[in-house]
Amino acid sequence: MLIVPEREIADLMTREAAFAAVEKVFAAMASGDAYNFPVVREAIGHEDALYGFKGGFDRAGLTLGLKAGGYWPNNLETRGIINHQSTVFLFDPDTGKVAAMVGGNLLTALRTAAASSVSIKHLARKDAKVLGMIGAGHQAKFQLRAALEQRAFEKVIGWNFHPEMLPGLAEVAEEAGLPFEAVELDGMREADVIISITSSFDAILHADQVSPGTHIACMGTDTKGKQEVDPQLLTHAEVFTDEVAQSVTIGEAQHAVAQGLIRDADIRQLGEVINRTHPGRSSDQAITLFDGTGVGLQDLAVAAAVVGLARQQGKAIEVDI
Amino acid sequence: MLIVPEREIADLMTREAAFAAVEKVFAAMASGDAYNFPVVREAIGHEDALYGFKGGFDRAGLTLGLKAGGYWPNNLETRGIINHQSTVFLFDPDTGKVAAMVGGNLLTALRTAAASSVSIKHLARKDAKVLGMIGAGHQAKFQLRAALEQRAFEKVIGWNFHPEMLPGLAEVAEEAGLPFEAVELDGMREADVIISITSSFDAILHADQVSPGTHIACMGTDTKGKQEVDPQLLTHAEVFTDEVAQSVTIGEAQHAVAQGLIRDADIRQLGEVINRTHPGRSSDQAITLFDGTGVGLQDLAVAAAVVGLARQQGKAIEVDI
Repeated sequence: MLIVPEREIADLMTREAAFAAVEKVFAAMASGDAYNFPVVREAIGHEDALYGFKGGFDRAGLTLGLKAGGYWPNNLETRGIINHQSTVFLFDPDTGKVAAMVGGNLLTALRTAAASSVSIKHLARKDAKVLGMIGAGHQAKFQLRAALEQRAFEKVIGWNFHPEMLPGLAEVAEEAGLPFEAVELDGMREADVIISITSSFDAILHADQVSPGTHIACMGTDTKGKQEVDPQLLTHAEVFTDEVAQSVTIGEAQHAVAQGLIRDADIRQLGEVINRTHPGRSSDQAITLFDGTGVGLQDLAVAAAVVGLARQQGKAIEVDI
Repeated sequence: MLIVPEREIADLMTREAAFAAVEKVFAAMASGDAYNFPVVREAIGHEDALYGFKGGFDRAGLTLGLKAGGYWPNNLETRGIINHQSTVFLFDPDTGKVAAMVGGNLLTALRTAAASSVSIKHLARKDAKVLGMIGAGHQAKFQLRAALEQRAFEKVIGWNFHPEMLPGLAEVAEEAGLPFEAVELDGMREADVIISITSSFDAILHADQVSPGTHIACMGTDTKGKQEVDPQLLTHAEVFTDEVAQSVTIGEAQHAVAQGLIRDADIRQLGEVINRTHPGRSSDQAITLFDGTGVGLQDLAVAAAVVGLARQQGKAIEVDI
């Protein structure tokens, strides 16, 4: 089997490879070639940790396995290591033998960024000029970097609950040669694309703060109770997601569905748009919303890609098991 | 992290170590120190394989992780490797980092054998003389070897759907210096302890084929629909299990519970007997029945034990991840 340690991922994996892997597996999910297993997520009663498994199988890509790990909230403070810890295990679908083990921390950040980036490619207006960011934490920078590659953006605007973190986004915009402007939430009306990436449990962005023609990627809601946008927004918007089952239970759409504002059937898989079995955005005036919940198949897809790169570059550790 | 490859397990792991690990974790489950996560089990639609994850956390032993793998029915015929393929992954419960990877094939056989053996230690009559085996496949030999260490047995009797496989059991009995006798199912009335280890989907052993005072370990039923004994037997017997939730859904007790013959509350955890919070067998005339369904914590417990042995003996592969 092959091992690709966490420390090698930064040199091996590219945003382009993550984008390609996520786009492909979203397409495979929509065509029925790939599916995610039920998610296991447990509060284990030790170190306040959340631990679990996200698995799946992609028949088209022959990728089988799981991401295991979770959230250890005391890691950074008490041990100087990051709180999100995960490892991806790939199995040979022909035999059931373990085939690879891959550090999953940076990959998780890259695949999450790739998801909103894929949604922008397929759902945002071609002439989008202003990118709005809601949230300015560690992951927000990944989302921003990946998003900037999808359209000829001319400006980045941003809002964060803690405004003192906004300079982190300004830096990323500057790297791309773009001006950055801190705004109030009302200022998001100027945005053509909005990415929300927070850990909020209440609606931040309201329906009247979003202009016609905008594409919104809601990337922060991955648990029951979390929420980033006004559920009313989902009644106006054309709603897409990575996986409908997750969208309506743990994703942003959970609230609009629970309140009877929209039904499961109103939500389409982004993969359908990638596969051209759904036309995507209906007009330049439509608001499109991508509910990115994060699925195991994304993790497996980027891990399989990095194993391929590590093999090519001789950077995988081979262990005879 | 440490890797203990499958090929090292046979030299490292002992029946004694497996017994001790399984007995301890059953006790931890009963005292509330250890619990199993929901099981993921998927027919993936490739190679007719069943694949999934059994995870858990033992707060007392600080063992966290999962067994991943499954059943690949074409392996032996087309590739010359065994059909059951699994790998155990242990995580550091303090940080969420992966700590060890252990080959799970032989360990699964040993932990399953240890489970019926632990049940014999705690539930069979002390003066048990005749051990009856129902089933004579690969796993039956493991169960028999482990069982023979628990009482001063004087004879082994056996029945199998394919009687031509019984000499395999006779060999194991001979190794232990005991006579072996092939019997009809009615002949099981002579047995003081019976282990059933088949892949049957119908009752094999009937209530009138079991004498008072017998201990029965039903080890084959681990899936909805499987069945080894007459559900009526469970109304006469004092019923114990590894985990009640599995016993009533995928274990031998599923049928008696579904037919309303017994209730969940009639089934006790074997760990309670180990912990002496339940007296176990009520009399020499009682029939005791252990429904061994197989839980993830057993896998984690034997894997943690083998990692300890491998470390002591310098046989673990250390990988810097």
